[in-house]
Amino acid sequence: MIYLDHAAATPLDPKVLAAMMPYFSDDFFNPSAPYAPAIMVRRSYDAAKDTIGRAIGARGDDIIITAGATESINLAFSSIGGHVVTANIEHHAVLAAVKNFEHTIVEADSRAVVSAESIRQAIRPDTRLVSIALANNEVGTIQPLRDIAEVIKKERNARLARGDHTPIYLHSDASQGVGQLDVNVARLGVDLLTLNAAKVYGPKQVGLLWSAPFVELKPYIVGGGQERGIRSGTENVAGTIGFAKAMELASEHRGFESKRLMKLRDTMQKTLTDAFAKAVLSGHQRHRLAGHLHISFPGIDAERVLFGLENRGVLVATGSACAANKGTRSHVLNAIGLASEVADGSLRITLGHLSTDENCQQAAAIIIEEVTKEYARVGR
Amino acid sequence: MIYLDHAAATPLDPKVLAAMMPYFSDDFFNPSAPYAPAIMVRRSYDAAKDTIGRAIGARGDDIIITAGATESINLAFSSIGGHVVTANIEHHAVLAAVKNFEHTIVEADSRAVVSAESIRQAIRPDTRLVSIALANNEVGTIQPLRDIAEVIKKERNARLARGDHTPIYLHSDASQGVGQLDVNVARLGVDLLTLNAAKVYGPKQVGLLWSAPFVELKPYIVGGGQERGIRSGTENVAGTIGFAKAMELASEHRGFESKRLMKLRDTMQKTLTDAFAKAVLSGHQRHRLAGHLHISFPGIDAERVLFGLENRGVLVATGSACAANKGTRSHVLNAIGLASEVADGSLRITLGHLSTDENCQQAAAIIIEEVTKEYARVGR
Repeated sequence: MIYLDHAAATPLDPKVLAAMMPYFSDDFFNPSAPYAPAIMVRRSYDAAKDTIGRAIGARGDDIIITAGATESINLAFSSIGGHVVTANIEHHAVLAAVKNFEHTIVEADSRAVVSAESIRQAIRPDTRLVSIALANNEVGTIQPLRDIAEVIKKERNARLARGDHTPIYLHSDASQGVGQLDVNVARLGVDLLTLNAAKVYGPKQVGLLWSAPFVELKPYIVGGGQERGIRSGTENVAGTIGFAKAMELASEHRGFESKRLMKLRDTMQKTLTDAFAKAVLSGHQRHRLAGHLHISFPGIDAERVLFGLENRGVLVATGSACAANKGTRSHVLNAIGLASEVADGSLRITLGHLSTDENCQQAAAIIIEEVTKEYARVGR
Repeated sequence: MIYLDHAAATPLDPKVLAAMMPYFSDDFFNPSAPYAPAIMVRRSYDAAKDTIGRAIGARGDDIIITAGATESINLAFSSIGGHVVTANIEHHAVLAAVKNFEHTIVEADSRAVVSAESIRQAIRPDTRLVSIALANNEVGTIQPLRDIAEVIKKERNARLARGDHTPIYLHSDASQGVGQLDVNVARLGVDLLTLNAAKVYGPKQVGLLWSAPFVELKPYIVGGGQERGIRSGTENVAGTIGFAKAMELASEHRGFESKRLMKLRDTMQKTLTDAFAKAVLSGHQRHRLAGHLHISFPGIDAERVLFGLENRGVLVATGSACAANKGTRSHVLNAIGLASEVADGSLRITLGHLSTDENCQQAAAIIIEEVTKEYARVGR
């Protein structure tokens, strides 16, 4: 099996699982219980949040652990509210959350870039939140988040200058970037940040919302008052310990790993585009996640190729896993203006820990055979 | 170490962990991905929901997996809304969720029983939801849920008879009962049910909301549209598989285990009340969870006893873990009218898988010594 869908799910790193194991059995205590073994669990939990904090240049205290990125996004939106600005290539979680608020959706360009200028134009005097993912999960484009942060800073200063205290914050879902990019909240210039452990070789259904100390969050899931009263429910101790280990490993290996993946990706890209002159690459070709290769073969049915590849042990995606499952065309590919003939022939190939020189070469050869077969079938 | 706080947290059953393990590593795929290995994961996930369903006499399709009981309760309340009726001894999650709606809070009696009659009196023509936990998490009283269900059925029929189609539903958080009681949705007569894997030797931050097919749930966490669109976010595959195993084991062993725990509990209760004539037992003495023993030693400081016990390796609680952590007196003990002198001398002892004849005897002897020491210290 050659797994080329790391953007959809990642296997738990064995070191992550090893870190989690004691908290399933020996250290199972409720971190809110008053006796010493439970207090030790509470300390390990808080230390894990500090570790995650260090990885993103933040304090553990400013992190709310959630059940994944989707809940984190819902919490961010429900906390800030007001008029919201986002882009038409955002993840379904953002596009669904935005519907509960007055909103403006800006259009990304053909490379899936959301320009700071488009955000500037969309901001209104009552805009409180701008939400742009660090990197697009389908085509891999990395957004000019620092430029967008500058626009927001200017707007904030302009408001203050005229005595208007309406806050405006920048939120970013950096789930897809965290293993390959420097995700430092200060350097990115964000006020709220969403991360997902499951995208970085950590456990599923574990994520976080970081917010700057001056941002006031409002409880979304209410109850026992855990996570500073913002997110109730007995803490996911094992999951958070695993998340911390995953973040630690990501920080440690990011430099090496992103270079390695980029080399593998570029080689595969060259092999495939050399084989098919009409292949179309999507996403920004320079500002793109190292492991991402979004390639379309106009005129063929990617679904058929996907099943052909699967029969030969190569696992790729045609769109994001959520969209693919619903059998609808990807809203991202629509947004960047891919003709339907091109969009329908798209493969999303995402490399990661399971990718090697050898299996990428093998995969490229198999993809060429399967696409050639499909082109022959449709007589093109 | 002798663990007597099973109501706060339970260790993962080794069989549960074994069931989860493959889904951390080999079968890590996103269940929404389109290739066969992911489809197999989807099938295992759905089968796990069916297994959970069977344990409660329901269909897997009517179950929404959540990140624990608290989220499940929030989802139930936000879905149904309207005027809500609950009781003053309910869990913090219910008492917090109820604040977002018009509500009436009925008073439990001195044994922590919520009578069907008190519910009947609180129901208004616009009441849509009644939420009563199957068993109280502090004193262990089991509620007359079937009687309450009868009251609701009568109200529903009366409404229909006068052409009023305002729905009224019964929700119950059965998290504390599931390992020891028959939790069958039809026999309980509930329309919505909350469960928590962490209370039944399953993983933390995994729970569910079951609802009858005629109940319309509304999405609370929005996004990719998982769980029939009601609860978005990549599914917690390993957690749900573990939950299913835990429920299966609970169903299998419940008869034997509840008898075993009741015997251990009754013996401990007798030993302690024989030693201290002034000890006060709380909760209904017959309709009570088999493993629950809530006992107060008037005039002593339970916190001091708790630390004395902890030094000798015996772990008990003074109230629910959430409340204990905040250093406030338990709202349940207030609600059932315990004098503060009695309430402040309370220990919550909850037995479970880790309890044996031997360690319960040992624990009882140590508790007697520590309580005696404390009575001596305060000169009583």
